[in-house]
Amino acid sequence: MTPTTPQDRPSPDPDLAEVAPVLAAVRAQAPLVHCLTATVSMALVADGLLAAGARPMMTETAAEAPVLTTVADALSINLGTLSTDGMDGIPATVEVAVREGRPWVLDPTAVGIAPVRTPLARSLLTQRPTVVRGNASELLVLAGSGAGGRGADATDPAEAAADAARAVAARTGGAVAVSGAVDVVCDARRSRRVDRGAALLTRVTGTGCLLGALTAACTAVCEDPVEAALAATVWLDVAGELAAGRAAGPGSFRMHLLDALDEVGREVER
Amino acid sequence: MTPTTPQDRPSPDPDLAEVAPVLAAVRAQAPLVHCLTATVSMALVADGLLAAGARPMMTETAAEAPVLTTVADALSINLGTLSTDGMDGIPATVEVAVREGRPWVLDPTAVGIAPVRTPLARSLLTQRPTVVRGNASELLVLAGSGAGGRGADATDPAEAAADAARAVAARTGGAVAVSGAVDVVCDARRSRRVDRGAALLTRVTGTGCLLGALTAACTAVCEDPVEAALAATVWLDVAGELAAGRAAGPGSFRMHLLDALDEVGREVER
Amino acid sequence: MTPTTPQDRPSPDPDLAEVAPVLAAVRAQAPLVHCLTATVSMALVADGLLAAGARPMMTETAAEAPVLTTVADALSINLGTLSTDGMDGIPATVEVAVREGRPWVLDPTAVGIAPVRTPLARSLLTQRPTVVRGNASELLVLAGSGAGGRGADATDPAEAAADAARAVAARTGGAVAVSGAVDVVCDARRSRRVDRGAALLTRVTGTGCLLGALTAACTAVCEDPVEAALAATVWLDVAGELAAGRAAGPGSFRMHLLDALDEVGREVER
Repeated sequence: MTPTTPQDRPSPDPDLAEVAPVLAAVRAQAPLVHCLTATVSMALVADGLLAAGARPMMTETAAEAPVLTTVADALSINLGTLSTDGMDGIPATVEVAVREGRPWVLDPTAVGIAPVRTPLARSLLTQRPTVVRGNASELLVLAGSGAGGRGADATDPAEAAADAARAVAARTGGAVAVSGAVDVVCDARRSRRVDRGAALLTRVTGTGCLLGALTAACTAVCEDPVEAALAATVWLDVAGELAAGRAAGPGSFRMHLLDALDEVGREVER
Repeated sequence: MTPTTPQDRPSPDPDLAEVAPVLAAVRAQAPLVHCLTATVSMALVADGLLAAGARPMMTETAAEAPVLTTVADALSINLGTLSTDGMDGIPATVEVAVREGRPWVLDPTAVGIAPVRTPLARSLLTQRPTVVRGNASELLVLAGSGAGGRGADATDPAEAAADAARAVAARTGGAVAVSGAVDVVCDARRSRRVDRGAALLTRVTGTGCLLGALTAACTAVCEDPVEAALAATVWLDVAGELAAGRAAGPGSFRMHLLDALDEVGREVER
Repeated sequence: MTPTTPQDRPSPDPDLAEVAPVLAAVRAQAPLVHCLTATVSMALVADGLLAAGARPMMTETAAEAPVLTTVADALSINLGTLSTDGMDGIPATVEVAVREGRPWVLDPTAVGIAPVRTPLARSLLTQRPTVVRGNASELLVLAGSGAGGRGADATDPAEAAADAARAVAARTGGAVAVSGAVDVVCDARRSRRVDRGAALLTRVTGTGCLLGALTAACTAVCEDPVEAALAATVWLDVAGELAAGRAAGPGSFRMHLLDALDEVGREVER
């Protein structure tokens, strides 16, 4: 029954320790994140933001989305299952975020052969997103060097897209995060590999969309886009590892992932 | 090993005991509730109604929603993530409910600065909703005395909105339910406080929307709007308490909440 | 501690054993299933397909859905909560699937009094869906012999619709699957009863929509439409039985159902 000394504690996860201040800032400031996002994953994105301590707002019409962006702390634009409302509302909403100086994240889901979202994503790049988050094939399309995936899943390994990511970052002046078995977060000068996460993250719809929205939450509390994108990536990856250890399959994984987003990094904060 | 006598049983929850006849009537009659509701919380609302023993129907287009309302037992109108389909379909759908004598609930989610839903909510008040359900800042906006919240969360305590709620109820002739740490259910003459629930209810998207739809289900089986709104409020609050006791975080809370909606009040019925 | 011999193993489920090759083919080939489906159940459908080993794609606009169908392995059309985007996009998307020789499934959710989807479903029958999947009252409407249900739930027992199902199959040349307490899968010549499943499947929104999408996944890997529809039906029913045995209510049932879709039939494959 000797008292626990600091030395007896398990060492904190070094990846988590690095990003813990960003997680703590999201929890303390509860940024309001306006999301124009894939219908299919809207609930996971909103619940994931709430679990992380942020607050979601989700309206995509041209009639309301731009005005509502004026009270948001960050904006997340995801092109998955792009509706007519989304097509109409996205450009004006991004313009408001840029004009008001709000950080914003572009998630070019499933660009490639999709005839509306592919040119839309390219034109949105000129609005200099704070972070672009996608998989390898999406980044290759944006950089002009790939044909895109089938659906929303990647066909090229994340590292193969590292050159494309740097090229996109050079154009936007922001950060780029490439998700895959190994994640890469970079800007035009720096590049970081994150070799964390769990295979089950690919068995639940919308975990990529959630990463984009979580990245937006982090940009609201952290000036450096690379640090913000890195924090969101580590946050979701470590939560995925915890959830995978507790899950019996993809259904229970989804539930444990949300619980873990609320839990991850709190012991580092103490 | 003495046999259990009635006296040995734990006393039933007095709040639940009061509303148990309404819960039992929902379970017995399985009312069909037509919901035009926020896209982000559609699944929680539908699953919550099913867990409670009601039946959801969810179509929002002007082309189909009014006709489908003729076979519904109650209507729930929620303005969150208002789509163009919803903007177009809501007024004609409410007119059908009113014409057919169906009870209907208005949930003015996120009114305030939103330029379409704010005047829409005000004009719908003239159709005399059976129950208006919202948070304090939404009620203040409807009563003309507040600027609205940021997004869907309240910035004023529920009790501060009690005057606004009574003012709105005086205009509609129905009930008003104000959700918050303490809930208030009132009409122009009566007012009830409900000091139940769990903080985790604010960590899952759409629990407020679900309360609106559950209120609609209760109005379908209970003539008195205040009693119906009180029953739905206690139902969700007590289910939230049960779920909070079983949950490890917001993900598992959402699952336990649905289980608890199915469970709450059954022991009182026996 | 005698070693386990094959004879000691529990006999495999005979229904599962019959369809196990189809389940294994879905897992091996991971077909990309394009779904234009009810908004309310989009997440369950996508997560269910992923749990089963298939890959979902979900875009419903006329601007993008037809083009994206060219890279899909199968198409699932569900008319529940039909949006304006869906109304506009469905006919052209089905035309592409037919022209490209892709199997496709029609799920005529809630046809009857709905003024758009009822004629739409009838006109889509002329495009000869590989499988039509619905409940008894929906099949009666399609065959011209019923008035439809209230909302999405059936009012006639599945077997009463067997004649209607055969009549529809005779027109399309494909298979018809009728869901109910007892499921029926037939074409113009053959008919199979499946007396499996769990009552909790009716307490979660979208399990019927998921069955339609899972059927589409099976048609992508199995030439015989009756075999494909039978495999999907048994897959969901047996997963429902497993989940019902583990669930405390409809919320936990939904989670266990997704886990079980990933689990069912694997022991037969070994």
